[in-house]
Amino acid sequence: MHAVASSLREQRKLRTTADIAAAALELFSARGYADVTVAEVAAAAQVGERTLYRYFADKEDLLFAEDESMREHLRAAIDHQDAGDPPFTALRKASTVVARELDSRRDDVRRRSEVIASAPALAARERAKQADWETVLAEALRDRGIPANESRLLARIAVACYDEAVTRWLDGDKPQRKLDATLDDVFTEAAALTPR
Amino acid sequence: MHAVASSLREQRKLRTTADIAAAALELFSARGYADVTVAEVAAAAQVGERTLYRYFADKEDLLFAEDESMREHLRAAIDHQDAGDPPFTALRKASTVVARELDSRRDDVRRRSEVIASAPALAARERAKQADWETVLAEALRDRGIPANESRLLARIAVACYDEAVTRWLDGDKPQRKLDATLDDVFTEAAALTPR
Repeated sequence: MHAVASSLREQRKLRTTADIAAAALELFSARGYADVTVAEVAAAAQVGERTLYRYFADKEDLLFAEDESMREHLRAAIDHQDAGDPPFTALRKASTVVARELDSRRDDVRRRSEVIASAPALAARERAKQADWETVLAEALRDRGIPANESRLLARIAVACYDEAVTRWLDGDKPQRKLDATLDDVFTEAAALTPR
Repeated sequence: MHAVASSLREQRKLRTTADIAAAALELFSARGYADVTVAEVAAAAQVGERTLYRYFADKEDLLFAEDESMREHLRAAIDHQDAGDPPFTALRKASTVVARELDSRRDDVRRRSEVIASAPALAARERAKQADWETVLAEALRDRGIPANESRLLARIAVACYDEAVTRWLDGDKPQRKLDATLDDVFTEAAALTPR
């Protein structure tokens, strides 16, 4: 009974967080990040400011709501790959799994990316997030028994591939291909372009 | 005559800039970035504060004095590679050339990297610099006739390799190998780890 209640509470919390983040993206995208106040975001999401601040530390945070779950998800996706897979293959499969979930949300990802590009502090945080992903990927590979140096290098290359795939996927009014297919292409291309 | 005078002025400017940057690194490293004032850096470099501000926009800038020349240098190094070289080879050779020049300055690079890691704003700027390098490399490849997508992907991978090489080179009290040799290893390893 307690587990159910706590899980319901957890679900409500996730929903509220997502609603607030969606309202924030909508407003930032329509009127510009600098010109929107946290109070306006709270009003648009139909919550009080105190509730908003229970879930988000500050205004910037409103654009990075999914960081933690993405990070955990990415980590779990690697841990789920076959132990016998070479590390590049494990990274490729795991990041494709994560990419698949973003595919239906291209408009949001694109608007978010435009907002991020509009403010240096946001762009800096986005880059810090990428550095963080590198750390998570490298740790996951080390836990698969890959030496530390090799793990770090592969993690950097995987994040480079992921960023490139997102850039290609967001390019143009309509996507040429799905994100996961684009990412798979990029991994293939990275291998082909770096001949032994 | 005018060209000589302007070149002497240029040299003096470069020397003054380097002296101020060296004094800043020394102080930041010894006492912590936050606890050193710009006035103290000027005094240590034996210049007036107004002179310092002629060359550096602000305190952060003192740690990024070489950005512009490194960028130009990297760009020139790529342009100098054989037109027939595959792009990955051109990137590899060019970045090895740039790496060679840093090799004798490991202590400074290491102290700088410790100072950068001590302040989030500096780390953010360092990451922005890396993004900037990716742009420079991608442009250089495009100018060699490589398609835009491929250029961008290769530039990201090259910067990943460069960062990894610097990490390995700075690890430990004494370097295992020279930076350019380390970088060459990393490029070889990147190719081997990303099998077709």
